[in-house]
Formats: sequence, structure tokens, C-alpha cells
Amino acid sequence: MSDPWQECMDFCVEVTKRAGKVICEALQKDITVMQKSSPVDLVTETDQKVERLIISSIKEKYPTHSFIGEESVAAGAPSVLTDNPTWIIDPIDGTTNFVHRFPFVSVSIGFTVKKEIEFGIVYSCVEDKMYTARKGKGAFCNGDPIKVSGQEDISKSLVLTEMGFKEDPEHFKRMLANIRTILTIPVHGIRSPGSTAVNMCLVACGSADAYYHMGIHCWDMAGGAAVVSEAGGVIVDISVIPAVPAAAGVLY
Amino acid sequence: MSDPWQECMDFCVEVTKRAGKVICEALQKDITVMQKSSPVDLVTETDQKVERLIISSIKEKYPTHSFIGEESVAAGAPSVLTDNPTWIIDPIDGTTNFVHRFPFVSVSIGFTVKKEIEFGIVYSCVEDKMYTARKGKGAFCNGDPIKVSGQEDISKSLVLTEMGFKEDPEHFKRMLANIRTILTIPVHGIRSPGSTAVNMCLVACGSADAYYHMGIHCWDMAGGAAVVSEAGGVIVDISVIPAVPAAAGVLY
Repeated sequence: MSDPWQECMDFCVEVTKRAGKVICEALQKDITVMQKSSPVDLVTETDQKVERLIISSIKEKYPTHSFIGEESVAAGAPSVLTDNPTWIIDPIDGTTNFVHRFPFVSVSIGFTVKKEIEFGIVYSCVEDKMYTARKGKGAFCNGDPIKVSGQEDISKSLVLTEMGFKEDPEHFKRMLANIRTILTIPVHGIRSPGSTAVNMCLVACGSADAYYHMGIHCWDMAGGAAVVSEAGGVIVDISVIPAVPAAAGVLY
Repeated sequence: MSDPWQECMDFCVEVTKRAGKVICEALQKDITVMQKSSPVDLVTETDQKVERLIISSIKEKYPTHSFIGEESVAAGAPSVLTDNPTWIIDPIDGTTNFVHRFPFVSVSIGFTVKKEIEFGIVYSCVEDKMYTARKGKGAFCNGDPIKVSGQEDISKSLVLTEMGFKEDPEHFKRMLANIRTILTIPVHGIRSPGSTAVNMCLVACGSADAYYHMGIHCWDMAGGAAVVSEAGGVIVDISVIPAVPAAAGVLY
């Protein structure tokens, strides 16, 4: 039997390219910024426009499929994963970067069937890097196979994270404490590029050895998770692993 | 009178391109890493090879000029700025990035006469972005003019910094405290790309609004300082400005 989801994946790459083009065009113009939950949680008309473009294109071709999109959920749509083929979409991962024209901005799409990821696409559109991963078939950047660094010594690692203000003082305190803990190991360094999906792809291609993030949404990671896994990496949710060793406790 | 230093600048762009090519070629091969002052202060054969290439090329053409190079100073050469035409060189700015193949790696050269910067060149070689600035003639990226964002509201700013382990506990504590202070304003975000010269150029082209760094060397900033200044930005050393306002106190 031929791969039933390869056609969806090929279509996803096409749609993602188109979405990236819209984003790159928008970067040449004035950007109107709106706030979501806090002064540091931003959204733009382009986020919403790109999500509409992606969902309407896919719906037209696959009318029975389901969607979880960052901006649709923000506007009140449910965020429920079912067994139905489901597209999990972040139209602009790295909205703050987009607002500032900081060069890590991506479109991220993960596709699940029976709650399992079948493929993931991350398009870092300013860099023009298209990361693709089909379950069991490896991960690629612009068609070239990629793999994780394989580094097992944290003291020789470059670690990625995100730093932002958190309204919850406990969350904020823990975020800062984690940075101190990791730097004190010491690691080679911490880098913070500002796009979850790009961070995951940087780990996938071995440019960094680990990425940790507190408080991640499914649309932030669905595309990148497929890329990391197929590149030989692991995704760990430490909140559901009670017996995680201390050294790995910082990772997710 | 024609510009006496333009020829030096044109030659510098050529040499920097050649250096960038050597770096990009080295990124395709195995990288041997050595430690300098601490486990997080790294150097490679390529740093030393590229500095030798740059200095020997320039010396051949301008035998009377002086040099301050990161690796020469590490090997015991003096780091003294005189009135003589002086090339201040960081052969690989972002050595840790280079070791990990993290995509921000640059060659940075500043050229001074009578202790004033006449031009600066930063070549972010993986991105293939050549930043150039001649005193009084503006700043450019790949030939296109660039300018700073002009953002004056810190709460709408994207701020760059570097995070690393510091042997001096007071320095380390202050570094972490600065991150907390800046995030709490709150700013739009903090990003940490890992190359001082690239950070300065990101500010110069408006992709970030400010960059602060504690404990910077002249070779880290000579090239980028020219680019930022000519793009309309300012460089501040708060250690020599006693009456700096509190809000600007974080900047350098």
C-alpha cells in the first residue's frame, strides 16, 4: 500500500512555502502589533492572515480534516486532539521576532492521525530553510538529511532556551534559576533565538545540543517535534516523568 | 584630496571575504577545540589560522601598520593602541558558535588612525552578510544602507545580550540580575545569538533595539562599533559615564 499521508505532506510543503512568502512580503511593510494576554504576548494581522490562508487551503483539499491553530484557539476555537487527521498550525512561530524583523521566523505545521504525528514541517522563511520530517523516514533541511549532534556530555553542549517575562512570579523565578543552574554546570553556552520551532530544528541539525522550554503549546512544537525525532533526538516532558534523573530535569 | 583610507577599506573587505571562506570550509570538516582561560573560553586551529591569514595579507600590503588581534594577544602580543594606523581583528567572533556550527559566526575588523575608528567590517559568513561602515559615510549590509530602529521606548524593545558562566561570582550574579531587571521592565524579549559583532550589526540594521555586554574586548567591538555608529546608533561605556540615567545603566 502506498503511503496514505505523503500526499498531505507534499501539499503541506507547498502551502507552507506560500505562507512563508506572505510573511517575507509583510516584513517589507509596516507591521501593526496587537497585544494578546500581556504586553509581551504579541500578535499581528499577518499571524491571523497566514493562519486563515493555511487553513482555508487545506480545508478545500481535505474537507473532513481537523485543525488546531494558534490564532483560531486564541479566538475561541477548541484545542482538542481527536483521532481524526489533524493539522496543528503555528502560522508565525516567533511573532516577536517577526515584529522586530529578527531573522528567526517560521511557519510550523504538524499533522497527526490517531493522535500520533505523521509528519512535521517547519519553514524558517527569512533563512529560507525548509525542514521536513515524515514518520520513519528521517528529517531533512532543504532536502538534505539532518541529524542531531549526538553530544552526551552536557558540559560540552550548546543549550537553547527562551527568556521572557512571566506574570506568574514562581514561573519567572524558576526560569531565571534554570538559566543560572545550566550556566553553572558550565555548558558551552546558552543561546536564545526566539522561535520554538527554529530552536527545535537547530537541535535537529546539530547546531545546538539541547533545547528546554517551560510552558509550551502544541502548535509551538508539533512541527518541530517530528523534525527532532526523525533527526534522532528525543522530546521529553518532565512533568509526566516522575523519576527523571536530576541532570535531565532541566530539559523540559 | 581623495579619501586616504578607502583603499585600505576595500582591501579589508577582500581579505575578510577570504577569511570567511576559510571559516565556512572549516565548518564542513572536523573541528578541534582547545580551551583558553576556562572550560567555556574556547579556541580552535581555525581562529589562529584565520588571524594569521588576515595579518599576513595586510602586512604584506601595509608593512608599517600596527595590529591588535585576539589570538595574537592571547599568545602574548601587546594590546596597545597607538596613533599609527591599526587593524583590530577578531578572526572568528563567536568561536563557541563556530564549534557548534551555530549559524552566527563572523570576522570582525576595525581600523583606527590616531586612535579613532576610520572604518569597520563585520562579515557574518554563514549568513553571507557583509556589513561595512566608513566614518561619515553610513553603514551597509551587502551594499544596502542600514539604520537602527529608532525605538526609544525600552518596553517595546528587543534586547540582545550574551550569557555565559563567569568565574567571578560577582560578575556572574550581576549578569543574571541584569537579565531579570530587563525582562521585568518588561521588554519585548531578550535574544542571545552568541556573536558580539553580529549582535552589534543586528542593532545596526534595526532587527534589535539594544545590545549590552559586560566585559567586552576591543577586538569584539571595533568592527561592529563603526557599523552601529554609522547606522545612527550609539555606543556607551557606562563605566566611564558616572551620571548615566538608571534606565540606560543596563546598556553597557
